[in-house]
Amino acid sequence: MCWIPGQARDDKPVYCLLVPVYYLAMSQFRKDPVSGEWVILAPERGLRPHSFKNTKRVLAPKSKCPFEDLMKSGNWPPVLEYDEKGKWQIVVLPNKYPALKHEALCPQELADGPYRVTEGIGYHELLITRDHAKSFPMLPPVHALEVFRLFGERYRTIDKDHCMAYLSVFANWGPSAGASIAHPHYQLMALPVIPPVIQHSYDGSAAYFKKNKSCVHCDIIATERKKKVRIIAENSEAIAMAPFVSRDPYEVKIFPKKHSARFEGSTEAALKGVAVLLQSTLAAMKKKLGDPDYNFYIHTAPLLDQLKYDHYHWHVEVAPKISIPAGFELATGIDINAVDPDTVAKLLR
Amino acid sequence: MCWIPGQARDDKPVYCLLVPVYYLAMSQFRKDPVSGEWVILAPERGLRPHSFKNTKRVLAPKSKCPFEDLMKSGNWPPVLEYDEKGKWQIVVLPNKYPALKHEALCPQELADGPYRVTEGIGYHELLITRDHAKSFPMLPPVHALEVFRLFGERYRTIDKDHCMAYLSVFANWGPSAGASIAHPHYQLMALPVIPPVIQHSYDGSAAYFKKNKSCVHCDIIATERKKKVRIIAENSEAIAMAPFVSRDPYEVKIFPKKHSARFEGSTEAALKGVAVLLQSTLAAMKKKLGDPDYNFYIHTAPLLDQLKYDHYHWHVEVAPKISIPAGFELATGIDINAVDPDTVAKLLR
Repeated sequence: MCWIPGQARDDKPVYCLLVPVYYLAMSQFRKDPVSGEWVILAPERGLRPHSFKNTKRVLAPKSKCPFEDLMKSGNWPPVLEYDEKGKWQIVVLPNKYPALKHEALCPQELADGPYRVTEGIGYHELLITRDHAKSFPMLPPVHALEVFRLFGERYRTIDKDHCMAYLSVFANWGPSAGASIAHPHYQLMALPVIPPVIQHSYDGSAAYFKKNKSCVHCDIIATERKKKVRIIAENSEAIAMAPFVSRDPYEVKIFPKKHSARFEGSTEAALKGVAVLLQSTLAAMKKKLGDPDYNFYIHTAPLLDQLKYDHYHWHVEVAPKISIPAGFELATGIDINAVDPDTVAKLLR
Repeated sequence: MCWIPGQARDDKPVYCLLVPVYYLAMSQFRKDPVSGEWVILAPERGLRPHSFKNTKRVLAPKSKCPFEDLMKSGNWPPVLEYDEKGKWQIVVLPNKYPALKHEALCPQELADGPYRVTEGIGYHELLITRDHAKSFPMLPPVHALEVFRLFGERYRTIDKDHCMAYLSVFANWGPSAGASIAHPHYQLMALPVIPPVIQHSYDGSAAYFKKNKSCVHCDIIATERKKKVRIIAENSEAIAMAPFVSRDPYEVKIFPKKHSARFEGSTEAALKGVAVLLQSTLAAMKKKLGDPDYNFYIHTAPLLDQLKYDHYHWHVEVAPKISIPAGFELATGIDINAVDPDTVAKLLR
């Protein structure tokens, strides 16, 4: 489903067309060795005609931005703040419009006929960086690392709440990626349950570890370093690659090289290594893919039963909004990707 | 994530605002009794400000449409055709840009280091209706039924191919729903594997049947008919409801009332009952929700081991493209829905 919804600039070509057809004559089902999900890699789909015209991005004015004067806009006071010269540069604060709320008691599960309902208890916080226009790749590297460091602090603090099972950290950049506010910000949501998608990955990772006595992500990194076709960049601490099983066109995963189950368990050097590659990956996407909207998010071990999940390997996934889930994806959970990850790595390198 | 990407007309209000806040003070986790998926129902999220401006739909001209003169545009000859007065009204034909291809042999699974790959063998077909502008709700009812009848014929025919495990039938209407061509069309994709999302639903349905000796969907229908708050419409053969566990705002499910595992096993009366409700539901969405793009798709028993799946109950799911999956949904597989299904039923009734 290769089409940029409402955001291609100036009718630039659609980027799916970059895939050489002769390269993969037949499509493939690829099974994710961790999550067990299937993906259809179908390069020929990128060649089909498109009858819709794309439109330009419209940026929101700074004057109406609720993240410029935080107090005046009625935001909650920060729970964490990083200042420079007495001025805030980065804050973490509770979301004014939370999907989940923090309560003293753990959530109750209730049955209602055939249905099961659990109270929406959890944490929903925002991390906001000061500059209205500087998205993650444009931040000074010291601020990018500080963003990661503050995420780590929230992992450690929320971990003390025994009702919480998982903390999801993610970014929505641009309206087609689900951002409602243009000012750069990042979200933290702590949940009383382990989400099914995450649980499937833990299960796959545990099964692989049991069978092979090694971490599946470490083995994938070793395979990719040997093959040298899907690696985009690496430094002494981290590696960025176009996954063999890419759900979305131009998807990238960034791993710390040293095995570590938990984001908050990594050294500052490892966090810095990943932050540097996240910045360079997003900068390459902006330059090479026509400044797409994107999401990125952290996949890490849960807050509960930490020892049980030592087989897991935390990482960051980046998904530019080049494609949109259509009926087939909604109906089946299988993504059709028209762009070969080998091509992606070549382009973003 | 309540925001209409690139398609709200004339800056009409965003429809999430319809939810009364006082109605559900706290958000809820709701667990789907069939698929086991979690959804967060968070009405307050619908009230947050939006700094992006929506844009208008741009319709493609008829003159460049590849589905007007099928032969001239290089399409494959139809495998099924419904004519009136010697002119085609509906055709089913192989997709010119297939995600999967039909081959004589069943697909092989290959191992490549930690990865597993299966050849992309299957069927990818289009059903095209004649009129360039008439989407499903605008079709003459006799054509709407004929569309369903032709789907049924393809289920029966492709079922004879023992390599195929599941046939997914779906519609993408409008660019934000993944359509690349504006001319109304529907897609059929037969797969050599049962997709994970479908498998989870079969598993949930089977577990419920084992425990309760009844069909989970039949019990949901009975519960909803008693509660009378989430039913949108019904006739003697079918029922349309806003699901208690709605992943997307304004999602609707339509069931045949008489238990039937397989779409192609239903009577013509049942197909007609469902087709009528699908037309009226889509017409109500067009009128009440500002003509959103949408997807709809059929969930039905697999092509293989049919007797094993008699507990299942086929149905149609309709998902208007009011929201977009953002970082949280991608990261966790949990959807955040800001619109209470009780409100949806009231609005679409």
